[in-house]
Amino acid sequence: MTVNIDNANAVAVERMIEARPVLTGLGKALDTVPDMHQDLLLHAGPPIAWEDASGPLRGALIGALIFEGRAEEEKDAAQLIASGEVRLSPCHHHNAVGPMAGVISPSMAVYEVENETHGNRAYSNLNEGYGKVLRYGAYSEEVQERLRWMHDVMAPVLGAAIEACSGLDIRALLAEALHMGDEGHNRNKAGSVLFTKLLAPHIAMAAPDPATAAAVIDALGENALSVLNPVMAACKAMADAGHGVEGSTIVSTMARNGTEFGIRVSGMGERWFTSPCPQPVGLYFPGFSAEDGNPDIGDSTITETAGLGAFAMAAAPAIVTFVSGTPQDALNATLEMYEITAAEHTAFTIPQLDFRGTPVGIDLRAVVETGITPRVNTGIAHKEAGVGQIGAGLVRPPTELFTEALIAFAEQYGFQE
Amino acid sequence: MTVNIDNANAVAVERMIEARPVLTGLGKALDTVPDMHQDLLLHAGPPIAWEDASGPLRGALIGALIFEGRAEEEKDAAQLIASGEVRLSPCHHHNAVGPMAGVISPSMAVYEVENETHGNRAYSNLNEGYGKVLRYGAYSEEVQERLRWMHDVMAPVLGAAIEACSGLDIRALLAEALHMGDEGHNRNKAGSVLFTKLLAPHIAMAAPDPATAAAVIDALGENALSVLNPVMAACKAMADAGHGVEGSTIVSTMARNGTEFGIRVSGMGERWFTSPCPQPVGLYFPGFSAEDGNPDIGDSTITETAGLGAFAMAAAPAIVTFVSGTPQDALNATLEMYEITAAEHTAFTIPQLDFRGTPVGIDLRAVVETGITPRVNTGIAHKEAGVGQIGAGLVRPPTELFTEALIAFAEQYGFQE
Repeated sequence: MTVNIDNANAVAVERMIEARPVLTGLGKALDTVPDMHQDLLLHAGPPIAWEDASGPLRGALIGALIFEGRAEEEKDAAQLIASGEVRLSPCHHHNAVGPMAGVISPSMAVYEVENETHGNRAYSNLNEGYGKVLRYGAYSEEVQERLRWMHDVMAPVLGAAIEACSGLDIRALLAEALHMGDEGHNRNKAGSVLFTKLLAPHIAMAAPDPATAAAVIDALGENALSVLNPVMAACKAMADAGHGVEGSTIVSTMARNGTEFGIRVSGMGERWFTSPCPQPVGLYFPGFSAEDGNPDIGDSTITETAGLGAFAMAAAPAIVTFVSGTPQDALNATLEMYEITAAEHTAFTIPQLDFRGTPVGIDLRAVVETGITPRVNTGIAHKEAGVGQIGAGLVRPPTELFTEALIAFAEQYGFQE
Repeated sequence: MTVNIDNANAVAVERMIEARPVLTGLGKALDTVPDMHQDLLLHAGPPIAWEDASGPLRGALIGALIFEGRAEEEKDAAQLIASGEVRLSPCHHHNAVGPMAGVISPSMAVYEVENETHGNRAYSNLNEGYGKVLRYGAYSEEVQERLRWMHDVMAPVLGAAIEACSGLDIRALLAEALHMGDEGHNRNKAGSVLFTKLLAPHIAMAAPDPATAAAVIDALGENALSVLNPVMAACKAMADAGHGVEGSTIVSTMARNGTEFGIRVSGMGERWFTSPCPQPVGLYFPGFSAEDGNPDIGDSTITETAGLGAFAMAAAPAIVTFVSGTPQDALNATLEMYEITAAEHTAFTIPQLDFRGTPVGIDLRAVVETGITPRVNTGIAHKEAGVGQIGAGLVRPPTELFTEALIAFAEQYGFQE
């Protein structure tokens, strides 16, 4: 059998573009996420063992076990995982994604997104906001208290509000946000206020009392990343729609666990290609510098995989105050990504480029041929467990990842050089 | 006495830039707006008599008298004004501004904005949203019902929510909105959701019941112009701060009543210079064309006067889908306005132009010297009373207005050509 890669890629990318991810509800991970169980913790990136986990991932895993009531302190938590009593699995193996450490534990609330075009689903956890947060590896009592409030108070109200919306179209929200200076990854300022605006009337109705309504609206509205997690789930639903197309060299997953950067390819099933994570380059908060930074971490590269984030950066010139660079760099980032993508998005357009669609569908072949690797916008975590975010910046996965994947693709499909 | 115009202009513009307009509350026009009285209706633009009023202004005046319970139908209302029992006065003569017809009647709620730097205040009415609305000259029962709901149900809750904010900084909100694709005049999409986000928690607390909270939040959040009126009041407060500087040729008012376009100049007191209103050029809603359009109308040119609107259009490339043109035209609009302005704003910056400040402070001399008139983004009203908005587009005031004002300036200050 001969495979026409161009045709296969066209199918994969068309499926990504035609996917319409809609937020349908908020569930408990244990009851909602496929193959979730009581003794499982999900994490960002490709598979990893406790021994190989970096500081922020360890911190988040410890914090999740404390949140679950399974451990009281660091060493108990470490022991539970090291002993194999609690197991680890990538979010991506469960139709899920999580920013930074991306840890999802059984009791956590997860956004449920359905791709109404193709029927597949995807999940992500709640966004905690800024400062000392689990996803950056902090797990102190302050972090726990916030998580408890989010789950005991906010989640029931938020879930009811989402259900009252009867389907919140995240693709439409993203399309609008791109016209309002977002790129959908590190800048979700417009998306988060649009999200808050859509939900606030329903929150007012669903809350047990006005003070709770006010607190929940405030928590969403004052967190400029509140929509990031449903956006990531939406991107996962779109990327998954393009996965599994026989003969396609389109990259359908990019994810980092803080130790390794991993990619998966549409035509190559569940196989991961991994390589050590690079260090992001960017701006650090006062008191921190590059040497405090952890290697790149998080599933949020699902946004770039779906044609957003750094790929849509031309739409978000103001982001450079956060990730470094100039507005011209932001424009150039998008222009460069057209070199390695198979299509231009029809739903996501960039006013600054005369409403041209964002570059979407990273073609393994184009990356290897041009030597241009995907650009990624990212947050930077402290390398030690328990600290948190120390900056934001830009990163690119290593070239060898794509070379290795392309060679494996050629072997799998019996191509000769 | 010799006057140094450059120095005077520097003072006027610096005052405009340093003004910090803060929304402090919502009052009843009769109790709040200076020199408002029971038999007075305020309107947009320079002074005008009933006989000279265009369709949409007449429609709005009629609608306001019906809203006030002073008239039941068109002819009663017309009679009240024609007889002199009810008088007309420009909003601008009462520290107020109103979009389109800009009619403010005694019972109407008005936003109260205080310039915390210089202490002056400004006012504007509530925004009704889209479709059949008073400000575009519609006055049917549907319009009345909406106005009654806004005043009986929304205003008390909104007023309490604003007070609970203890000062909502409109300049900061605008600065943020410009980084989110707004220009602050025809595109206030980001500003309106930011406004909603800030108020929603307080609305949840202030509303008599959850359904009212939801309805008020929804009315603000789903109206992409909900913040336009407080923004206009803020611009009025800023422009007024720069008015009255001896020897200054800075334009401190631009306003249209649907028949005449009027300007006032910082160093020339309360004197208006007027000229027939031009017709906007733009995009019409389906079923309408240029021949249905009224000449330009509204006080919303206060945004351009304060360095926003078309002057900040480079920040809002997506606006071209609404007012016509290309994103490059939007960029060019701002670049052109630097030619006729005295300064660059320090609070309002444009990411697309490497965070350059918006052009602010129209210098009469520069307009006359270059022949470049100020650009204005605007809505287009149907020329007949009772219809409403039929499009949006671009307009420029006539050159002779500026020539006439400059000649008068030279006469007033004893300059010789």
